[in-house]
Amino acid sequence: MKTRKLTLLLAVSLGLTTSAVAEQYSTERHTVEMTTLTENLSHPWGMTFLPDGSMLVTERSGTLNHISADGSERTKISGTPSVVAKSQGGLLDVNIDPDYKQNGWVYISYSEPNQEGGDGNSTAVMRGKIDDGEWTDGEVVFRQAPKYESNAHFGSRLVFSPEGHLFITLGDRYSRMEDAQTLDNHHGKIVRIWPDGSIPEDNPFVNDDEALDEIWSYGHRNVQGADIHPDTGELWAIEHGPQGGDEVNIPEAGKNYGWPTITYGEDYGGGEIGIGTHKEGMEQPFYYWLPSIATAGVTFYTGDKFTQWQGDLLVTALKGQQISRLDLEDGRMIHEEHLFKGDIDFRIRDVEQGPDGYLYILSDQDNGRLIKLSPAK
Amino acid sequence: MKTRKLTLLLAVSLGLTTSAVAEQYSTERHTVEMTTLTENLSHPWGMTFLPDGSMLVTERSGTLNHISADGSERTKISGTPSVVAKSQGGLLDVNIDPDYKQNGWVYISYSEPNQEGGDGNSTAVMRGKIDDGEWTDGEVVFRQAPKYESNAHFGSRLVFSPEGHLFITLGDRYSRMEDAQTLDNHHGKIVRIWPDGSIPEDNPFVNDDEALDEIWSYGHRNVQGADIHPDTGELWAIEHGPQGGDEVNIPEAGKNYGWPTITYGEDYGGGEIGIGTHKEGMEQPFYYWLPSIATAGVTFYTGDKFTQWQGDLLVTALKGQQISRLDLEDGRMIHEEHLFKGDIDFRIRDVEQGPDGYLYILSDQDNGRLIKLSPAK
Repeated sequence: MKTRKLTLLLAVSLGLTTSAVAEQYSTERHTVEMTTLTENLSHPWGMTFLPDGSMLVTERSGTLNHISADGSERTKISGTPSVVAKSQGGLLDVNIDPDYKQNGWVYISYSEPNQEGGDGNSTAVMRGKIDDGEWTDGEVVFRQAPKYESNAHFGSRLVFSPEGHLFITLGDRYSRMEDAQTLDNHHGKIVRIWPDGSIPEDNPFVNDDEALDEIWSYGHRNVQGADIHPDTGELWAIEHGPQGGDEVNIPEAGKNYGWPTITYGEDYGGGEIGIGTHKEGMEQPFYYWLPSIATAGVTFYTGDKFTQWQGDLLVTALKGQQISRLDLEDGRMIHEEHLFKGDIDFRIRDVEQGPDGYLYILSDQDNGRLIKLSPAK
Repeated sequence: MKTRKLTLLLAVSLGLTTSAVAEQYSTERHTVEMTTLTENLSHPWGMTFLPDGSMLVTERSGTLNHISADGSERTKISGTPSVVAKSQGGLLDVNIDPDYKQNGWVYISYSEPNQEGGDGNSTAVMRGKIDDGEWTDGEVVFRQAPKYESNAHFGSRLVFSPEGHLFITLGDRYSRMEDAQTLDNHHGKIVRIWPDGSIPEDNPFVNDDEALDEIWSYGHRNVQGADIHPDTGELWAIEHGPQGGDEVNIPEAGKNYGWPTITYGEDYGGGEIGIGTHKEGMEQPFYYWLPSIATAGVTFYTGDKFTQWQGDLLVTALKGQQISRLDLEDGRMIHEEHLFKGDIDFRIRDVEQGPDGYLYILSDQDNGRLIKLSPAK
């Protein structure tokens, strides 16, 4: 099971005009080739594929890029909203409408400055259209309340349910973690709205006058990863824990996932948080990491290229510099593999499956990269 | 989460006549003190507690020991059956009857020589009574068929179901692994009998003329760990895989657990085994290890001393030199902790919970030890 790493220089000697460097990594079930498609991305955060195979990729500093399928062409989309590009804040996730071919809507999440002035900020979601390299028709469909002066824990993954709801995963804003347990704010919540910003009638707290109607689930810390399970249609949400205690949850309507009252982690530096690991009325995670790997974006793999990974959940890690593969069978996790651990020297912010069945990842670096993963021939 | 290790010398300066050396190990949720109770055990394999808190402990070389609760007194039981003490074979597990207080029956598993002469051997289970240090009234209640010339893969854990059945976990005898897929033999099986050797009427294959009536489940490799889940009453069986592919299974009546047709492991040295990891009609494991930790004895912890481990499955490892703690919640595994990994330098063959709620382990060494685990004060 030792990892071999080879560097292959392709297309260098046959008169071809381009060259690509690919590296190979052995894993338990596939030898994986990594090919860098695009470099010089400043802390890329989120990506999504357009119907023609090209991609939209965000840079945290505020740029939305349109990148061709092979990575060779890159266009900066002008006119996107201004963002608070400090620390963890900036332009974050991007996704397209389930009916994109008909309506052209693109959704972006970002740390929005206080519209009324002052220093506060919070996660907002805007939808707009892209017309000849320009962001048009922008309308904010969600604003996390309240605005707060912090540059941390924005959450921000955007996921559509099979019924067309938009799930937005949020963070606790770090120093407001207690807010995750009260329903009069959006800190530490996952919210569910319709794509135009309206509230689904069956949201769990619509009849509770003291709770915000957008809330789907609560007691979260900083949910940076989310995807819909390909078989069950359920939302799976992966949250970045404190020191220890990254969690996979399958959030159900109205349920409390415990943060910061219960956690498997501890404060940075070693202090205790909350009352322990269990409390009546608070949910246990599906899985947790201790020590933390610092989870970020995730995807369920359903393609035909990595046949041995079908149905598995791939979880990117920042500090952990790996992709955790959770081998799932009938809704149970039967094994964890730490892909690339110890063999790469960069943080990974996101992973997506392309329409071609290959995997694409974003390295979280000053000179960040869009990298294609393919099984070695 | 770093492990601290301290050496404490207890009771050395207060005029006491005995001394014990304890070492402390940090783990995620408890600081654990290890105290050696008994040394000079030759590859101890199995143990069980008597109602008075004393223990029966086997040595693979063939000796059954009666050891006092504090480890200070040790009596060799005379008259136990002769065993084939070669390689993995010898005197293996020991357990007492659920009605031991009334009937005094003790059960031992061992590699039995061919009673008709020749070189073959197989796992047998004998019950007997212990009278003033002597093994009496011995009767064989199970013999694995056929006898075979191999010194490997004897399985051999002895577990009683809540209804009083005796489960005996078996091995595939290594070079007869294909036998695990056919029902006319006991290789690679788990069997279920009544303690007197008779066959339960509802065993899954009693109406199949071509299958042996004792068989409960099949397609196993070398099941060296087993326990009954404290809440569900189900048998959990942990098998030692090839290179990669140790498995936890929850064997159900008549089901096929796949070995050697499907496995997550590979042959020692790297060769492929079987057809892959999945096949219709064959069960997936509850959990698997890759690379292998080389699993041996297991126990569910239900005591009041390690409060943070209640309900968890503890799995000893030989090559892995650790105890894997599977953190279980409502039948799901939500985390694995590798207790003592990298901090001890011995293989662990078995773990049992004492009637006092402490844990007891056997180190698999020429100079093997019985070690008590307690939470540090």
